[in-house]
Amino acid sequence: MSTTNNVVKLAARPVGAVKDSDWQFAQEELRALGDGEIQVKVLFTSLDPAMRGWINEGESYMPPVAVGETMRALGVGRVIASNNAGFAVGDHVSGLLGVQEYATSNGQGLFKVDPRMAPLPRFLGTFGMPGLTAYFGLLDVGQFKDGETVVVSGAAGAVGAVVGQIAKARGGRVIGIAGGADKCRYLIEELGFDAAIDYKSENVAQALAKHCPNGMDVYFDNVGGEILDAALTRLAVGARIVICGAISQYNNKEAVKGPSNYLSLLVKRATMKGMVVGDYYGRAGEAAQALAGLAMQGKLKAREDIVVGLENFPRAFNMLFSGENNGKLVLQVAAE
Amino acid sequence: MSTTNNVVKLAARPVGAVKDSDWQFAQEELRALGDGEIQVKVLFTSLDPAMRGWINEGESYMPPVAVGETMRALGVGRVIASNNAGFAVGDHVSGLLGVQEYATSNGQGLFKVDPRMAPLPRFLGTFGMPGLTAYFGLLDVGQFKDGETVVVSGAAGAVGAVVGQIAKARGGRVIGIAGGADKCRYLIEELGFDAAIDYKSENVAQALAKHCPNGMDVYFDNVGGEILDAALTRLAVGARIVICGAISQYNNKEAVKGPSNYLSLLVKRATMKGMVVGDYYGRAGEAAQALAGLAMQGKLKAREDIVVGLENFPRAFNMLFSGENNGKLVLQVAAE
Repeated sequence: MSTTNNVVKLAARPVGAVKDSDWQFAQEELRALGDGEIQVKVLFTSLDPAMRGWINEGESYMPPVAVGETMRALGVGRVIASNNAGFAVGDHVSGLLGVQEYATSNGQGLFKVDPRMAPLPRFLGTFGMPGLTAYFGLLDVGQFKDGETVVVSGAAGAVGAVVGQIAKARGGRVIGIAGGADKCRYLIEELGFDAAIDYKSENVAQALAKHCPNGMDVYFDNVGGEILDAALTRLAVGARIVICGAISQYNNKEAVKGPSNYLSLLVKRATMKGMVVGDYYGRAGEAAQALAGLAMQGKLKAREDIVVGLENFPRAFNMLFSGENNGKLVLQVAAE
Repeated sequence: MSTTNNVVKLAARPVGAVKDSDWQFAQEELRALGDGEIQVKVLFTSLDPAMRGWINEGESYMPPVAVGETMRALGVGRVIASNNAGFAVGDHVSGLLGVQEYATSNGQGLFKVDPRMAPLPRFLGTFGMPGLTAYFGLLDVGQFKDGETVVVSGAAGAVGAVVGQIAKARGGRVIGIAGGADKCRYLIEELGFDAAIDYKSENVAQALAKHCPNGMDVYFDNVGGEILDAALTRLAVGARIVICGAISQYNNKEAVKGPSNYLSLLVKRATMKGMVVGDYYGRAGEAAQALAGLAMQGKLKAREDIVVGLENFPRAFNMLFSGENNGKLVLQVAAE
């Protein structure tokens, strides 16, 4: 059991893009474990676009991280001390561990993961929150039906890549939108997407018109902004738009750009629905089974982009918004 | 049977607000009736916000009215000549009769109305397309459940007034948004709404916070723009937004104002869904029965604002967008 802990705290509430000075590195003494508590050595910390929302002021689906508080993050770690019969030393667990070296927890909200099943970082991606988001977002919120046309933005990201592969495995036609030729090639050559649109070099609305001559049945949106507006011009009648995120808008200093073409919802009798993955934790087993099944058939590929060292958290965090990362972005905090 | 016909044609495709010069009055010879055709003397012509969309260029749920074509409009009239066994001289009919004195039709899309049941203009309002829109918009698209809180914009209009009264009759709590103290008083005193917000003199977001402390379950939107954005700040978890129209945006010369607060859909797991009433024509009987039942119980009040004379069509049309009309706006083209 360790007694000192390096942590990353929120130093200031950021305006627009997050600056290094918005974070504070601190060293803290760890108190003795209470009854029912465990100590977890954090191995991998997840970097997710939703974290940008957690550090904004104001009401959301979770209370904001307070200034001076340890930054909230999902992670995977190993139990190194336990006063809780549910967890043994050596168990690997995943959950909200925070951006720090050691997490003290009563075990609530943590679940065990099996490192023989997949590399640990994958429990923060395909087999973690992004995988759950993709599964329930596409099937439950998006009501995807076999054979439909699906367009997904942020397609090379942790959520988007899983959305596209589930849809492909179920007979869908899948078009991914991503930034850069490398990511687009990856979508088609590695993940088997039918088409990919490089928003950095193509006119998205025109490309969608080309690739979805009959419109799209599901649009899974991770980015918002101009790309959401372009997608709205190409809906099929009865289309469903899943609002999963809006990564293009999270660093805005001004008001979010609302989708000017939202009246297409009327013309196309379409639905735009928001989702928060936490609502589906009770059904996580269903998704885990389906995703593991796909993975065993070779139909669910994944890649992780791993940045090493707690001290690199600020830089890694901003990679999410510049689109620099290739695959699920994870911070390696410690070796086993 | 008449042989000359005064008609109002679309003279130019309007940009922004519709000008008098965008309409053209013409007199035409009426041809002899063919087999299966009827001639209808138009008595009342409906003025509906959707008509602004019909004269825009571009794809929508109906082809646009062409320049030079008789303006499309719903109306009620009386059959004055018939070569169709389904319609007798003297029958009253409702349907797309156009902005003109006489309509020639094969009867398709026309249905008979009974003037003993209600004053004829009401078949263009409560017992017509606006009533159907309100009924299916609230119950089918909006999935209203007994006891929920409903907010409706354009609340004193033809659709909004019916939405609120159906919800009240089913145990809902209803807040209407309308322009001006008179309309607000009407909503509360005549229609029995729980509260009314005058968008011309109140801060809508603040007023919604006051009247919906627990958020709204259904927001029925007829207006779009700033009011839609305000409503998005007060959604209950799982709220449904019905996009029925966007009267504040129809005369825009620039891009429509998209709802900046659309990410509330995510935070509140809410749904925004568009509707086109034509999709429900097959179920019109269900709505007619329910609405007639409410009316007989005194729970469905209506008022019409009648402008007399075909020559006043251009002025009456613009009243829709200035909010000058009190109740369902109808043009009286002829007496019986």
